[in-house]
Amino acid sequence: MDNLNDEEIFNDRDRIEPFVKAITRNKHLFKDKVVLDLNSGMGLLSVLASQSGAKQVYAMKANCYATEIIKQNNIQNVTLKKENIKEVELNCKVDIIISAWMGNMLFYGGSIQEVIYARDKYLNKDGFIMPDRGQLYLQSIEDTQYRDQKMNFWNSVYGVNMKWMKQWVAKEPLIESIKDDQLNSDEQLIYEVNLQTCKLEDLSFSNQYQLKIKRQDYVTGVIVWMKYSFTYTHLPIHVIMGPTKSPFWKPVILYFREELPVNKGDKLQGSLAVKFESEELLHIKLSVHLQQQNYISYFKLN
Amino acid sequence: MDNLNDEEIFNDRDRIEPFVKAITRNKHLFKDKVVLDLNSGMGLLSVLASQSGAKQVYAMKANCYATEIIKQNNIQNVTLKKENIKEVELNCKVDIIISAWMGNMLFYGGSIQEVIYARDKYLNKDGFIMPDRGQLYLQSIEDTQYRDQKMNFWNSVYGVNMKWMKQWVAKEPLIESIKDDQLNSDEQLIYEVNLQTCKLEDLSFSNQYQLKIKRQDYVTGVIVWMKYSFTYTHLPIHVIMGPTKSPFWKPVILYFREELPVNKGDKLQGSLAVKFESEELLHIKLSVHLQQQNYISYFKLN
Repeated sequence: MDNLNDEEIFNDRDRIEPFVKAITRNKHLFKDKVVLDLNSGMGLLSVLASQSGAKQVYAMKANCYATEIIKQNNIQNVTLKKENIKEVELNCKVDIIISAWMGNMLFYGGSIQEVIYARDKYLNKDGFIMPDRGQLYLQSIEDTQYRDQKMNFWNSVYGVNMKWMKQWVAKEPLIESIKDDQLNSDEQLIYEVNLQTCKLEDLSFSNQYQLKIKRQDYVTGVIVWMKYSFTYTHLPIHVIMGPTKSPFWKPVILYFREELPVNKGDKLQGSLAVKFESEELLHIKLSVHLQQQNYISYFKLN
Repeated sequence: MDNLNDEEIFNDRDRIEPFVKAITRNKHLFKDKVVLDLNSGMGLLSVLASQSGAKQVYAMKANCYATEIIKQNNIQNVTLKKENIKEVELNCKVDIIISAWMGNMLFYGGSIQEVIYARDKYLNKDGFIMPDRGQLYLQSIEDTQYRDQKMNFWNSVYGVNMKWMKQWVAKEPLIESIKDDQLNSDEQLIYEVNLQTCKLEDLSFSNQYQLKIKRQDYVTGVIVWMKYSFTYTHLPIHVIMGPTKSPFWKPVILYFREELPVNKGDKLQGSLAVKFESEELLHIKLSVHLQQQNYISYFKLN
């Protein structure tokens, strides 16, 4: 018996509802179409796709409850597979791929590689992916108190000198929401991906940013948060995992080496480079320039 | 590089402090002793044991930071091993075994089997384990609203009939704290283990309980919470992971098949049987008798 873990459905409405909406309010897209659900679990989205008019649904990574749920709902055209898409061979092309491929920083802890594999092998040329777009936004923050507390902790851990750990702690991005009043710049789009066309190498990037400081303050670092979108639906559905309210995928906090004093109207410039090695390993390089100061910091998510 | 996950130390003071206290306030126990730390990580407890007078410390499951931390603290007599105790061969006996072996329901998600292995193979006959005792307590609760909400959810999950899931949901214990005012009986000790002497078969048990109801109410089920103790210390240290406040190991909630109306002074009788198959699999059988009503429920933690 699979581990039930019904919390995935029970508690994570914020994560599932955009998918439910994208399917049930867009029956015109599903009519007579072949659908591939890359992570079907109990089969919820596969059943909804079938009920929305799909001709055939292939449901990967189905759990042990899915068979009975499909049956109880009198669904005939959902084919359940326990395996993931790389482990099976489908004998036809598909029109729609459904996948919650998102992770932190869009790709970390997600399943983007599976989507690209499935798309290149099975998606019809006028087929589409749900959701099909992802964006990363960057914004500067003041977080001195928490950062100091976190760093100073290592000076003496129950009497043991662990100062040496600080250099490693500084390289670990924090995955955490922050408070509204900690944001002290405007937000800036730093990266965009289109799943319909992206290649694996597009998941790594190096882009410039310029943030406009909103008040006299200190900048401890930046926060990176994401947005993903279903753009093939009748009305586009945008899901914003913002810096302060992120029910499921939390934003990533990257601290500078030192905090920077800033004034209202200052322009904080720099670049963010992310190297995608796999869904379990991201290298991040953050540079910042302000007046005569230049810092480069390196981080790793793994 | 190991995943840093410094939160283990940074955030879980409640889990670590009893160990720190047990070591640093009991230097008389450590003087010239050989210590085995079964899960050393960064080496914190091993360093403290050495500083408390231990002659030699064997530190299992050390991470990549431990070597440098040992060095920075000028510790010479800690031997670091990346492996767990079953994967190495020590060439001497030990006087003290340190291990945070506890999990939910004492053993689930813990590492009790490793402790028993290490004890039988390496512990001197007058040696001891830290902590060396564990207890489970049982108390009845009223939790109708949450239970109903959780169960009724499956009637229609975004329009999909998943009623069939209820039978499985009912068999999954909840691992969750509750509110003080939900407790409606006295507490009862239902199981005790002494790590100095226990065998693997002692980790399974079937014991009777009799709870005295405190008010006119409904009983939805019982909550099982734990206590563990260091009894070889100068003053015994008891750590209570209570039903309402459990920073690290949350209590386990077991629902009856139906809620029972109870009156002040009623005696709720029954038995709790736990079959320990491994640290990843516990079978639980809960029976309850009240007047003419008898229910038996089966649960599985895996």
